[in-house]
Amino acid sequence: MKQFAVIGLGRFGSSVARTLARLGHQVIAIDSDEAKVEALMNEVTTAIQADARDEEALKAAGIRNVDVAIVAIGENVEANILVTLIVKEMGIKCVVAKALNDLHGKVLAKIGADKVVFPERDMGVRVAHTLASGNVLEHIDLSPEYSIVEIVAPTRVAGKTLGQLNLRAQHGVSVMAIKRNDKILAAPGADDVVEEGDIMVLVGRNKALERLQES
Amino acid sequence: MKQFAVIGLGRFGSSVARTLARLGHQVIAIDSDEAKVEALMNEVTTAIQADARDEEALKAAGIRNVDVAIVAIGENVEANILVTLIVKEMGIKCVVAKALNDLHGKVLAKIGADKVVFPERDMGVRVAHTLASGNVLEHIDLSPEYSIVEIVAPTRVAGKTLGQLNLRAQHGVSVMAIKRNDKILAAPGADDVVEEGDIMVLVGRNKALERLQES
Ligand SMILES: Nc1ncnc2c1ncn2[C@@H]1O[C@H](COP(=O)(O)OP(=O)(O)OP(=O)(O)O)[C@@H](O)[C@H]1O
Ligand SMILES: Nc1ncnc2c1ncn2[C@@H]1O[C@H](COP(=O)(O)OP(=O)(O)OP(=O)(O)O)[C@@H](O)[C@H]1O
Ligand SMILES: [Ca+2]
Ligand SMILES: [Ca+2]
Ligand SMILES: [Ca+2]
Ligand SMILES: [Ca+2]
Repeated sequence: MKQFAVIGLGRFGSSVARTLARLGHQVIAIDSDEAKVEALMNEVTTAIQADARDEEALKAAGIRNVDVAIVAIGENVEANILVTLIVKEMGIKCVVAKALNDLHGKVLAKIGADKVVFPERDMGVRVAHTLASGNVLEHIDLSPEYSIVEIVAPTRVAGKTLGQLNLRAQHGVSVMAIKRNDKILAAPGADDVVEEGDIMVLVGRNKALERLQES
Repeated sequence: MKQFAVIGLGRFGSSVARTLARLGHQVIAIDSDEAKVEALMNEVTTAIQADARDEEALKAAGIRNVDVAIVAIGENVEANILVTLIVKEMGIKCVVAKALNDLHGKVLAKIGADKVVFPERDMGVRVAHTLASGNVLEHIDLSPEYSIVEIVAPTRVAGKTLGQLNLRAQHGVSVMAIKRNDKILAAPGADDVVEEGDIMVLVGRNKALERLQES
């Protein structure tokens, strides 16, 4: 179990705080807006209403003892930067800060943020990849050329075994898992059959993955 | 090549529009804020300043002909819902709408949105998983019990072959890929060696993946 502080409980921050608490960690959640604090009160260890630019309030909240602080203040760039500076100077080992854009991200890194995140930008990239290739459900870039994708099995592969499809030899694509209803077949073998409606998790070159999705 | 319209060019919408254009698609980008339109002008097919609640303006922009419309208006829930309704009634086959929260998402689905996305919430879940398990770089839920993760190879596995590690037999975990600098080894075999600093892409049960990350 680790100790976390989440400062700024907008859509991103509240989701981070809630998920960490569900994973069994201690979470101190802070926002200047009382409604945001109340909405999360029953889901985290401690929820506190305070302006995070107030160093004394942060200390009183016990922020100094956390392993990781996440600064999820959004549109007020000045507050976001100031709070990142304050928590870093308190000696917190790992400070994660949410940035509005590249320039803001560079400033955050310079003043000591250990990790800078761009939730909207990154999710925009993911959603665009998903929409661009009709039946792709998930997409992870492994490198500029390789990806992992989750696709609905194309009709023409249904009823065949992985051995018959031979995707590895023909396309350089490996099937990492097959999802069927609630079940999951991790690392399936040559004898496993792909059924209609199955979701296949594939790894391979982008070009090869695109070809597979089209057909 | 497909035709897309992106309405609302905040952090999320602008990232979707930019990525779709980079992937080679036609993108009409719309925002009521002129600065947002200008910032994207040179990166998309057409960038238009208009209030998207104005149906005539949308028609003039050629929105009716797109394959997919993404409504990425954020905090003004009323405008978001109204615009989703308008573009859906124009006959666009696939309308994707960004929701603020669950309730908003349900309303969007009810009025005909074909897909509802929660970028901040989903990225909050991802970032929380990453922070909770120190060396996890990426995380995809395959099911409540199975995941794909990208982790920095733990020191104790460095120098060993996958055959020696035998993660499949011992942990039920498969190594889908190994990333080393800019190179990627997809579907590595028993003779492949894990080196210090390698990034391993693993699939398996959550419990087993957590055990691996700790050690
Ligand atoms: N000085 C501050 N101290 C504490 N909380 C703050 C401070 N400034 C802003 N916040 C809180 O941070 C939260 C996130 O800020 P904001 O809504 O501007 O960001 P956002 O990027 O739009 O958020 P999201 O997209 O995640 O919903 C808000 O709930 C806001 O009340
Ligand atoms: N009626 C409208 N017509 C066109 N654009 C609009 C309309 N209402 C809002 N927008 C634009 O939508 C964009 C996104 O809205 P907003 O900033 O409220 O959402 P957000 O969820 O905070 O965005 P993000 O987190 O992605 O930055 C803004 O650039 C805004 O100008
Ligand atoms: Ca906000
Ligand atoms: Ca946002
Ligand atoms: Ca905004
Ligand atoms: Ca916002």
